[in-house]
Amino acid sequence: MRTSIATVCLSGTLDQKLVAARAAGFDGVEVFEPDLIASPLSPEAVRARAEELGLSLDLYQPFRDFEGVGQELLDRNLRRAAAKFALMHRLGIRTMLLCSNVATATSGDEHLAAGQLRQLGDLAERFDVRVAYEALAWGTFVDSFDAAARIVGLAAHPRVGLCLDSFHILSKGHDPAGIEDIPADRIFFVQMADAPLLSMDALSWSRHHRLFPGEGDFDLGGFMGHLVRTGYDGPVSLEIFNDTFRQADPFATAVHARRSLRWLEHETAVATRRARRGSDEGAGSTSEAAAVPDEGAGAHRVRMATTLLPAVSPPAEVTYVELRTGDLRELRHLLRQLGFRAHGAHRSKDVELWSQGAARIVLGAPEAEQDQPTVAGIGLSVQDPAAGADRARGLYAPAVPREEASGEEPLLGVRAPDGSEVFFGAVRGAEPQWVREFGRPDDGDPPSIERVDHVNLAQPWEHFDAAVLFFHAVLDLRTEPTTEVAAPVGLIRSQVLRSSDGVLRVALNLVPSGASADAILPQHVAFATSDALSLARAARGRGFEPLDIPDNHYDDLQARHELEPGLLEQLRELNVMYDRDGVGEFLHFYTHPVGTVFLEVVERRGGYAGYGAPNAPVRLASQYRHRHAVRQVGLANPVAS
Amino acid sequence: MRTSIATVCLSGTLDQKLVAARAAGFDGVEVFEPDLIASPLSPEAVRARAEELGLSLDLYQPFRDFEGVGQELLDRNLRRAAAKFALMHRLGIRTMLLCSNVATATSGDEHLAAGQLRQLGDLAERFDVRVAYEALAWGTFVDSFDAAARIVGLAAHPRVGLCLDSFHILSKGHDPAGIEDIPADRIFFVQMADAPLLSMDALSWSRHHRLFPGEGDFDLGGFMGHLVRTGYDGPVSLEIFNDTFRQADPFATAVHARRSLRWLEHETAVATRRARRGSDEGAGSTSEAAAVPDEGAGAHRVRMATTLLPAVSPPAEVTYVELRTGDLRELRHLLRQLGFRAHGAHRSKDVELWSQGAARIVLGAPEAEQDQPTVAGIGLSVQDPAAGADRARGLYAPAVPREEASGEEPLLGVRAPDGSEVFFGAVRGAEPQWVREFGRPDDGDPPSIERVDHVNLAQPWEHFDAAVLFFHAVLDLRTEPTTEVAAPVGLIRSQVLRSSDGVLRVALNLVPSGASADAILPQHVAFATSDALSLARAARGRGFEPLDIPDNHYDDLQARHELEPGLLEQLRELNVMYDRDGVGEFLHFYTHPVGTVFLEVVERRGGYAGYGAPNAPVRLASQYRHRHAVRQVGLANPVAS
Repeated sequence: MRTSIATVCLSGTLDQKLVAARAAGFDGVEVFEPDLIASPLSPEAVRARAEELGLSLDLYQPFRDFEGVGQELLDRNLRRAAAKFALMHRLGIRTMLLCSNVATATSGDEHLAAGQLRQLGDLAERFDVRVAYEALAWGTFVDSFDAAARIVGLAAHPRVGLCLDSFHILSKGHDPAGIEDIPADRIFFVQMADAPLLSMDALSWSRHHRLFPGEGDFDLGGFMGHLVRTGYDGPVSLEIFNDTFRQADPFATAVHARRSLRWLEHETAVATRRARRGSDEGAGSTSEAAAVPDEGAGAHRVRMATTLLPAVSPPAEVTYVELRTGDLRELRHLLRQLGFRAHGAHRSKDVELWSQGAARIVLGAPEAEQDQPTVAGIGLSVQDPAAGADRARGLYAPAVPREEASGEEPLLGVRAPDGSEVFFGAVRGAEPQWVREFGRPDDGDPPSIERVDHVNLAQPWEHFDAAVLFFHAVLDLRTEPTTEVAAPVGLIRSQVLRSSDGVLRVALNLVPSGASADAILPQHVAFATSDALSLARAARGRGFEPLDIPDNHYDDLQARHELEPGLLEQLRELNVMYDRDGVGEFLHFYTHPVGTVFLEVVERRGGYAGYGAPNAPVRLASQYRHRHAVRQVGLANPVAS
Repeated sequence: MRTSIATVCLSGTLDQKLVAARAAGFDGVEVFEPDLIASPLSPEAVRARAEELGLSLDLYQPFRDFEGVGQELLDRNLRRAAAKFALMHRLGIRTMLLCSNVATATSGDEHLAAGQLRQLGDLAERFDVRVAYEALAWGTFVDSFDAAARIVGLAAHPRVGLCLDSFHILSKGHDPAGIEDIPADRIFFVQMADAPLLSMDALSWSRHHRLFPGEGDFDLGGFMGHLVRTGYDGPVSLEIFNDTFRQADPFATAVHARRSLRWLEHETAVATRRARRGSDEGAGSTSEAAAVPDEGAGAHRVRMATTLLPAVSPPAEVTYVELRTGDLRELRHLLRQLGFRAHGAHRSKDVELWSQGAARIVLGAPEAEQDQPTVAGIGLSVQDPAAGADRARGLYAPAVPREEASGEEPLLGVRAPDGSEVFFGAVRGAEPQWVREFGRPDDGDPPSIERVDHVNLAQPWEHFDAAVLFFHAVLDLRTEPTTEVAAPVGLIRSQVLRSSDGVLRVALNLVPSGASADAILPQHVAFATSDALSLARAARGRGFEPLDIPDNHYDDLQARHELEPGLLEQLRELNVMYDRDGVGEFLHFYTHPVGTVFLEVVERRGGYAGYGAPNAPVRLASQYRHRHAVRQVGLANPVAS
């Protein structure tokens, strides 16, 4: 699959955009006209620069408001097009994007539009270029791909074809299956964009909220399945207007974009194989051969070569979570109070292990030279660790170098966009082999905690979408609907990703973009127990002081939920929080934050599937007070003074 | 007019919110339930704290999903309400906000809903509280104020009245004139919110994009006119859900909020006077008497006391703009090249004056202890400087202390939210008296520049809306539609405010929230000339090097505008940019940035009213390259290396 990216997706100068696209491995770029106009590079210099970098210039875009107009304006538009065709000639770009008219069209007569496109095709022929006509979702008359396809069909000019943009089709709820009716040689270009499902005007939605494939709510694998069955084998490009990506580092965004297209290629391969007659799914081949011959009635010719990623099996277990923080003593203290047992230091690395049931915490000090997140790593056991690591690396995740001393279990690690690490180890009996690389645990009470329930990673604004894609694509986790939580320092967007059986659940929290350093969100690990109240009581017996939860919260809980007699008093006494959904109940409590990390214990009763989101504002306010030691008596009072 | 603010408008803890509201001078607050629930203060402690601060607790909110339900749920809802009424009793709050049912309503029968509200009223009576019913714009059945008013009328219970929220009424396009048909004693509470006109679902619009009055597109003065004609004299409160205010400093936001209500009170006084029968507009009174008796047919009783602000006449002239920057030599150089003449230093202050025509630039060094903006101040001549300063101070703008030596002209200064200063001086003949406090200008060519055309102030994310309100309310400028401009570091939102005759035009640019320090936008002053090409040529003769504009821009200009023969060549040669609108043309050129300030020269032909927005991305890219000295030859190439 040939990959391309529009320069509008990346921040910086045109030259920086080209370099970033090449560094991320794209085959080509779409030149977004404003980027060229603002560049001091002549068209010839841009062409030479792209050649030097080994990038093709796949599309010049956009040309607007051409068709469906009166004769005088048509003449002017043809002169305008001629100037741009001459420019494309200098750039060495063969295809121009023409958006359907949103402004000056005065007629919806498709024959009139087709006739004018035919004139444009004649002009394009003189410059040896061609025109890809795209229906914008907000086109005055032409706002659907089938209308655009009809007009292109009527134009019947070899230089006039279509550009398909998944956003303009899926945002209107149009069925992309109809794409299969378009002859492949009429599809000149394809732009793939994802987006969250929002209820707003399509123009604002498109201009500000597009996402890279795999980060939103559109079924882009299905879309691509229809596309490749037409026989289309041209570039698959990204044109993502997004306020965040416009501000982020272009090199990071380009890698992020390339990962999204690699994931999309995989999804396309899956969709194509699934649809193939006489399905050969399960066969060893991981690559679609180009030009698969298939001459049956109604069958299409698939020409695009798409390669599957190595399959990743769902994690069998979260084998450990690694925490790094400056104050290990405080964390050790909390782990001991929650019933964890110390295994001591690793025999060759500067980390230590704590465990309880199948929950394991590796503690380490932060590396001085690296700005590591405080939840520094997650260990997973999977059927085929090498395949997991291969898949991650196939998705451009950097490998984490790790030295193993003789006899130590090899773990294969990759790095997420925020710098945290994911390690793959083998499934092997009751506990991973590497546990024996630490000492024997000291004695303790029988375990009350069973395993890690979920991990919560705070993401700065520029990493959030990339992190969603990383966990979705690399670990094949599915996204749950996002929620918004009010914290004292702003709204926090939260996105949960989970494996199908719930073994691995990762919650990504988007730190408000304007938040100051004061507003850094602590990250945390939640442990699963079957009896949160007993555990909280036992911990208290060991001196544990949970995060303080205000009385007002319990009064409200009672008003909302009418709890069974006695429960409220226990919750209040132990600072345990409570939630209920349609199927079950959730009891959970928190440690206070240790630097920027904290721990949670959760009990899920009767299939409760959430994370206590209604309680999150209360928890965040308590953490905020703890962090800032804001107390009424100590607060400066500018009125009284 | 009694003023109140919902705690949800402010960031921080409940206690911080109360202190901030009081510090800004609010009479009372609405207690937003989640703020109470997350607070460690008991209801009694909150009540005591408010009393200590001298704040009334005006409303407890919100109570949801009560009415239009089956019997079993109604019983549960009544128990839930009893718990909240008991809590309100502890808080000493008399009024509860009840939102129309958005979730559990199964019937739109208004008689059923009214009967259930009557039961709620009976319950409220037992706790000596009352219920203000509000139609949410997205209520399942009740989504308009007139439906809510009908139900309240049917309920016919002294403890059941209405809450009117301007957002829920105006966002749906409902006519607020109907408010005048509601008996005043049925209106228990009023919330005033502004908002930009957006095309999106009302829920998201309301939750994220509300603005303080005077900052958006709603006619809130007209709304208030209808309200006061009912005889309503209760609190006028702000309930502003806004992602930015949730993150900003609560003390700054509270002052900003209070300013918006003071402006709204003024607009209300204007609307009320305008509508009064036998208009006595123009009379000396600036205050509406409370309880104006008016028993004429159909007339209403106005009981709310509203005070006008001192009137501000439109500025007669922008008398100067003050720039502060570390490198004065470079700025002097540029001013000289543009034809300005030096007047030398002020006789008692450490600033110097440059002038050309009626354009005057005061240059100074930044004050070390203050993080001053680089466009540090604007001087205006007005008919009554004292009234201008009084109006500003009446709108809570801090006065700028300024020492005048004997015989120097007094200037009255106030500070804008971003720290920049606005000074008012008297209108006096050809030039302000203070010009003589500097030396005589040196000789030079006849002036080509006539005056200051506009001033551009970059605003950090947390000041933008406050700055819009400041210039709108203090200087009575009107807002033009906002535009968005793509810069290499993100999208920049731009808001122009101008006096009716265009003498004062201020463009506020919102710096992208995620932008790093690298992305600081330079601020600038634009000077008006009647012949930009000649001036550019003359400046070049004096060694001026304008900001470099790429050739590609000129090629595009020609393709779009088909310029008259010869013009394109001159524009290109002189790096002058060009735009055209429906009525006229715009020629303009820029200096390169000096630190974070630059200068522009503009020529408006034939009534062109814009600011060359289509050219802004090109200018921003040139400045970005200049700032970062990004040049192709020097750019690290991670591919080649």
